[in-house]
Amino acid sequence: YSERMLLSLLNGKRITFKKLINALFSGSLESFYGRSLVLADRDLVEQGAEQILKDAHETDVAFLVVGDPFGATTHSDLVLRAVHAGIPYKVIHNASIMNAVGCCGLQLYNFGETVSLVFWTDSWKPESFYDKICKNRKSGLHTLGFLKQSVQMFVSRGKKIYEPPRFMTVSGLTEDTVCVGVARLGSDDQSIRTGTLRQLESCDLGAPLHSLVVTGQLHPLEVDMLRLSAEPGALGHLTMVDGSTYTS
Amino acid sequence: YSERMLLSLLNGKRITFKKLINALFSGSLESFYGRSLVLADRDLVEQGAEQILKDAHETDVAFLVVGDPFGATTHSDLVLRAVHAGIPYKVIHNASIMNAVGCCGLQLYNFGETVSLVFWTDSWKPESFYDKICKNRKSGLHTLGFLKQSVQMFVSRGKKIYEPPRFMTVSGLTEDTVCVGVARLGSDDQSIRTGTLRQLESCDLGAPLHSLVVTGQLHPLEVDMLRLSAEPGALGHLTMVDGSTYTS
Repeated sequence: YSERMLLSLLNGKRITFKKLINALFSGSLESFYGRSLVLADRDLVEQGAEQILKDAHETDVAFLVVGDPFGATTHSDLVLRAVHAGIPYKVIHNASIMNAVGCCGLQLYNFGETVSLVFWTDSWKPESFYDKICKNRKSGLHTLGFLKQSVQMFVSRGKKIYEPPRFMTVSGLTEDTVCVGVARLGSDDQSIRTGTLRQLESCDLGAPLHSLVVTGQLHPLEVDMLRLSAEPGALGHLTMVDGSTYTS
Repeated sequence: YSERMLLSLLNGKRITFKKLINALFSGSLESFYGRSLVLADRDLVEQGAEQILKDAHETDVAFLVVGDPFGATTHSDLVLRAVHAGIPYKVIHNASIMNAVGCCGLQLYNFGETVSLVFWTDSWKPESFYDKICKNRKSGLHTLGFLKQSVQMFVSRGKKIYEPPRFMTVSGLTEDTVCVGVARLGSDDQSIRTGTLRQLESCDLGAPLHSLVVTGQLHPLEVDMLRLSAEPGALGHLTMVDGSTYTS
């Protein structure tokens, strides 16, 4: 993973990278590069664009992220600042969870809108992600859900992967809905587990980063692929929608 | 681009790759590898799995594709055949148009279902892609549209990039809808042009591969990014949906 990401950055004279990468590659980057790196924490990325772009008129500056740079708004902001400062930029695209998730066997063109899954706090109870999942399912589409950091921490202690708000289970999404939990995709110890929402509650997928896919309608080839990672009985009660389509 | 894709394949004793890659990298792959490659045409990929997997019990076999392997159903089929034949496999993920398209400035999590755009023939007039675009737009979502090979040929002769069925223009999609045409993303001569559908008709984006994005609702930061590639006046008549959302 790291090789592919870093190969094209060796010409960068100053290399900044996000904290997330540090979590994934735990300090091995500096020795790989043979040069020192600047760790960019959230504050630096979101507030410190000037600091990142400093000297960029005189030397190449590389900014390293996990996945593809344009999954996150903050990176668009960095591009705009560079353009407005007259600094040329070049993007090296990379694999992202948004396409790598296809390795679970669900076809990428059958995914609807992506959502962020968050745990409720006393003061913050967003429901929009749930509505989006149901809307995707009604259209027969899969949903890729990002588990936010607090959830990831929760998961990494071996507990629940995702708990839907209980009073919402009457519509499209139930405890029997077939979902896929994926963790550390692209790394040698990646984990892919297919099961009902209830089954995945007790699955330990290990360390971050985790994502959860809620399936929509399934093509038989998608079902065959899901079998490769399925918990016992997970695909036992699929309903046939028509001759070549299933749903849970 | 090629470097990143190929680096991890050097251990493959026999390397097969798809015709599409040949179109993009025009024969430079063999010299990069220093070994001969087998060109896999559509027939070989879709019908000749046995031939690709031949000897895979005794030697490593690499299969090389453009983008991420799981954008296409045929590659899932190849994985299933390998698994059922007891052949271990490993996937090296790569950037794909499905995430690289974010470089045009539209946020990836605001994309709905992906579609394939095809020209009508006398005997084949599919309408489903149009309905999906309208459905995405109604939900405020962008649509990534793949231009099929016949369309790409059409475009490469400098003509229309996409012609919506005329009697369908009453609903969500009009000639004034802001779209983004992208070509050869990730290559040094990539092309990104933002304009109304009418404007893009006369844009020559050059050689394949082309994709077309139909915008949904736009965040001000997305509008700022689109300005970087916008035709004159393209963003002139955006309608404000609310204080932080625009649409065309």
